[in-house]
Amino acid sequence: MSQTPETPLLDTVDTPTDLRKLDQSQLRQLSNELRDEMISAVGSTGGHLGSGLGVVELTVAIHYVFNTPEDRLIWDVGHQAYPHKILTGRRDRIRTLRQGGGLSGFTKRSESEYDPFGAAHSSTSISAGIGFAVANKLKGQPGRGIAVIGDGAMSAGMAYEAMNNAEQAGNRLVVILNDNDMSIAPPVGGLSAYLARMVSSSEYLGIRSLASKLARKLSRRVHSGLEKAEEYTRGMVTGGTLFEELGFYYVGPIDGHNLDHLIPVLENVRDAEEGPVLIHVVTKKGKGYAPAEDSADKYHGVAKFDVITGEQKKSAGGPPNYQNVFGETLAKLAQTDDRICAITAAMPSGTGVDKFSQAHPERSFDVGIAEQHGVTFAAGLAAQGMRPFAAIYSTFLQRAYDQVVHDVAIQNLPVRFAIDRAGLVGADGATHAGSFDVTYLATLPNFVVMAAADEAELAHMTYTAAEYDDGPIAFRYPRGAGTGVAIPDKLEKLEIGKGRIVRDGTKVALLSLGTRLAESLKAADELEAKGLSTTVADLRFAKPLDTEMIERLMRTHEVIITVEEAAIGGLGAHVLTFASDNGLTDAGLKIRTLRLPDIFQDHDAPEKQYDEAGLNAPQIVETVLKALRHNSAGIEEARA
Amino acid sequence: MSQTPETPLLDTVDTPTDLRKLDQSQLRQLSNELRDEMISAVGSTGGHLGSGLGVVELTVAIHYVFNTPEDRLIWDVGHQAYPHKILTGRRDRIRTLRQGGGLSGFTKRSESEYDPFGAAHSSTSISAGIGFAVANKLKGQPGRGIAVIGDGAMSAGMAYEAMNNAEQAGNRLVVILNDNDMSIAPPVGGLSAYLARMVSSSEYLGIRSLASKLARKLSRRVHSGLEKAEEYTRGMVTGGTLFEELGFYYVGPIDGHNLDHLIPVLENVRDAEEGPVLIHVVTKKGKGYAPAEDSADKYHGVAKFDVITGEQKKSAGGPPNYQNVFGETLAKLAQTDDRICAITAAMPSGTGVDKFSQAHPERSFDVGIAEQHGVTFAAGLAAQGMRPFAAIYSTFLQRAYDQVVHDVAIQNLPVRFAIDRAGLVGADGATHAGSFDVTYLATLPNFVVMAAADEAELAHMTYTAAEYDDGPIAFRYPRGAGTGVAIPDKLEKLEIGKGRIVRDGTKVALLSLGTRLAESLKAADELEAKGLSTTVADLRFAKPLDTEMIERLMRTHEVIITVEEAAIGGLGAHVLTFASDNGLTDAGLKIRTLRLPDIFQDHDAPEKQYDEAGLNAPQIVETVLKALRHNSAGIEEARA
Repeated sequence: MSQTPETPLLDTVDTPTDLRKLDQSQLRQLSNELRDEMISAVGSTGGHLGSGLGVVELTVAIHYVFNTPEDRLIWDVGHQAYPHKILTGRRDRIRTLRQGGGLSGFTKRSESEYDPFGAAHSSTSISAGIGFAVANKLKGQPGRGIAVIGDGAMSAGMAYEAMNNAEQAGNRLVVILNDNDMSIAPPVGGLSAYLARMVSSSEYLGIRSLASKLARKLSRRVHSGLEKAEEYTRGMVTGGTLFEELGFYYVGPIDGHNLDHLIPVLENVRDAEEGPVLIHVVTKKGKGYAPAEDSADKYHGVAKFDVITGEQKKSAGGPPNYQNVFGETLAKLAQTDDRICAITAAMPSGTGVDKFSQAHPERSFDVGIAEQHGVTFAAGLAAQGMRPFAAIYSTFLQRAYDQVVHDVAIQNLPVRFAIDRAGLVGADGATHAGSFDVTYLATLPNFVVMAAADEAELAHMTYTAAEYDDGPIAFRYPRGAGTGVAIPDKLEKLEIGKGRIVRDGTKVALLSLGTRLAESLKAADELEAKGLSTTVADLRFAKPLDTEMIERLMRTHEVIITVEEAAIGGLGAHVLTFASDNGLTDAGLKIRTLRLPDIFQDHDAPEKQYDEAGLNAPQIVETVLKALRHNSAGIEEARA
Repeated sequence: MSQTPETPLLDTVDTPTDLRKLDQSQLRQLSNELRDEMISAVGSTGGHLGSGLGVVELTVAIHYVFNTPEDRLIWDVGHQAYPHKILTGRRDRIRTLRQGGGLSGFTKRSESEYDPFGAAHSSTSISAGIGFAVANKLKGQPGRGIAVIGDGAMSAGMAYEAMNNAEQAGNRLVVILNDNDMSIAPPVGGLSAYLARMVSSSEYLGIRSLASKLARKLSRRVHSGLEKAEEYTRGMVTGGTLFEELGFYYVGPIDGHNLDHLIPVLENVRDAEEGPVLIHVVTKKGKGYAPAEDSADKYHGVAKFDVITGEQKKSAGGPPNYQNVFGETLAKLAQTDDRICAITAAMPSGTGVDKFSQAHPERSFDVGIAEQHGVTFAAGLAAQGMRPFAAIYSTFLQRAYDQVVHDVAIQNLPVRFAIDRAGLVGADGATHAGSFDVTYLATLPNFVVMAAADEAELAHMTYTAAEYDDGPIAFRYPRGAGTGVAIPDKLEKLEIGKGRIVRDGTKVALLSLGTRLAESLKAADELEAKGLSTTVADLRFAKPLDTEMIERLMRTHEVIITVEEAAIGGLGAHVLTFASDNGLTDAGLKIRTLRLPDIFQDHDAPEKQYDEAGLNAPQIVETVLKALRHNSAGIEEARA
């Protein structure tokens, strides 16, 4: 799709300063052009579409009414910030979204002063907004914190903790609850049901008689725009809402696509002398683009697509994704094992748990964006004799780290952790990389930590985890498609703490954990071609280590290289610690550990990211050669 | 205090089975005896007193009405479980509480079938209770999940996530909100204010007319005990409560010390066909023991004390606690730096933040039990140019790990982390040990990680952190009293990534991080006595490492030993990784890393725990000698 929409009004708006010069009557046209521009841009890049379409009017209205960037606007999760990016000086780069070197798919401080806080994991915006508001209050300078947060993100405990502390920010905090009854998956839980009841039982329109009450509550002067607008009631007038019970002034629900409603309400809140205020805005995800509105997931995340037809570029077929291999394997195992359960935190399709829940709905639990609860809930299931699998992305499992330590590891409960998105993840960038799990899990007593080298290994590990009742066990695997190996009908129960030799050699040993095995094998080919006989081991376990195999390789090989898609402190550190505990380096041994670098890597194609990380075959080869050149005086020689 | 109270009725009760044989009219006497026994026991051991005193009647009532241990009873945080322990077969060991080899101060699965879930960190009970309830439902077997949770613990996001998912458990989940308006510190936040309003606006008594409504709501048959009791209203009758909005049936508030109220209400809930139910019980912390009731902290945690007078054994004076050195240093720095703020998560005195807030109340923030919010709030403050110190125990910082990664490290925001309770912590045991922070922080790009060797170093590090605006910086220090060194008037800004040589030698180098420095120096004395010239370095930084110093020591010493109060993956791993990255072991180098062992260590006196961990001077010496005996063939020789 090369055609670019006609956007005469949008062409005059580079930043919110330009926007504020427009007459309010022009904002409808601007919104329409902004929507067209966004559809065109995402059509050519892929990315998050539905969320952004839902907040076009809201984005225009916020920047029109509030004094950004002095007022600190935080888009929770950041999925929906594309219209915001277009309006804040980044339109010229909008077609580089999520490409290497291009704009991030989330908000990012380094990109713009209009992105005061990077948000990519959900539910952080209210806490950050309070921080901005309180800092400005302490400094005696103007500036609010404005958090726009979806109803799904409100289900996370972090949002509740923040709401519970919002009073400190007073009227400098504005929370806009963007209620589209639709996080990535259909909504779950009590809060969601509550919001649905509020919306269905409320009237948007014609509550004119409450206008003066609203004005009285929020501001001593009656805002001039108010009389012209439809007016909204604070819940307190008709009975307390959950948000009021936590200390907010509640306004809503209001129609988030009606600028004639949004603008005066925002103006009123802007001028309010009381606070904090929560504005409950109802929007439609995918709004204004028929293919998105008609789709079940409202085009939450899309590939490149044709703007006219909405048809997305299909991927070329190929091997199944790891997540689906996991979900399908688990579903099959559960046919003959009624103790198996699956838990996902609002990611049923991303984790493949949807495959499980289709077959076993009663044993499948989507807890919403609530990783903490999910893990301890799984611990309770395990303590009562079930076999729970908590399927959580590596980066999101960070949110449940204390539960992993305190409720699972200390109690040695057999919760199974299916850790998706391990390693680098491509277009989602640093916030979504699964870099730290090997380190933060393998440091815990009682834990078994595995990594799958390919999708057949993943199936074996799923089975192994199901059968392991002695304590916590985790297995990690990457985002995306597998290697194409066949998945055996008969799954193997792996021996805990035992690796496998994939290729036998005598001089160099590559100890691989995870899907870098393929690059390790490529590297071995190149080394052999140079006359260096190379062993390749798939360690399978970061913990417990296969110490027998590792010691044997160390005693018989000249160079040992560990390779993993994980940060410092993981496999390499454990291998080095084992070697030093046992004096294996006392008499000299060339060990090198290849791992993720000590930087947060920007988004790019995964293979380029791994190149930057130094974890592809050429870099493995170079590491071996360099180690061989390193002489006994500790100085690198010109030639080996 | 050697006298033991007279407890004729309690003497007949070993387990809840015995309790259930009593007539309801005897429960008042039993409660009184139980209270006396608990006061006597804690008088001789020290421990948590106020919380237990507040739930004596509740404990009796729950075990009387519900079918424990089949009904899974979970005491949130576990502080208040001492009466429960006395009633569940552990009375004979109650005077071993928190002693080495004795009963844990928290609930613990390995102690009793009546402790189905260990709880020591707050707010886990509802999630675990849902897990038990759902597992039993899936298995088609009887058994509820019963969570008793304090109002303070309800402020944590995890509790909210669980409430949001409670519906899955149906009437198998009973949550008892133990509202004593008093967590460890005075309550904070919107929820607390809300609960206070509920209690103050409600009537406990005389709502007889609502009895039939309660019965109708919760159960089709009217329970016979009900008519005799005072009755309570569900909020739904008078307007929705926050809990009902999240899907609970709400009952209360009721007087938690009145057995004639508690028993019939619990019976009714037990027989309810609808659920989940939340019972709002109001109790008094310290109830029934005048010295506790009269004390500001209600004897939350006490030393041994005289039962008659309530007087606690004073500690012998001695050096100040680390926490107070931190708090006082920060307060002083803030006199001339108005950007400094302090954040605590419900631990103002435990972290020493109370010293800061006395001097600078407007810049001091107690966010309640809400570490996630606390860290991201601090990130917001930092992004707006403040200098926030988040003072959080090592073990509780685990709860904010994702916020540390996503909101602080990735954005490279200068949040200062004052990490108290690093290393082993004595009587609180494994759940409170600060074992993993070096590992889980030093693996993160951008982070600076320090550890203080003594209280003067802590003061320097506090100052260094205040002045460091380039990114996140953490400093850790242990629980308890310092070493007694003087704290200089003029604080030093430490050079980032530079250690210090404390003692010069030639053959052995001990690289210490943190307060094991004292043991390292002792070990050096012993080694010198054996003719082994020993260098001792205080590395100060786990990240960035002082690579220049470390390389120099490695090139000039025969044996290198790292010593740290942290688990695998921390300092030792980083030193080994540095050495291997640079080929420093290629030609042979004896390195050993001393660290916390790969087990969760039980509670005991700290020095005994460190003995078990192998981190005292004799074990350091032995490690050196053993390394020296280790010959170049990798085999240990009989003599060096």
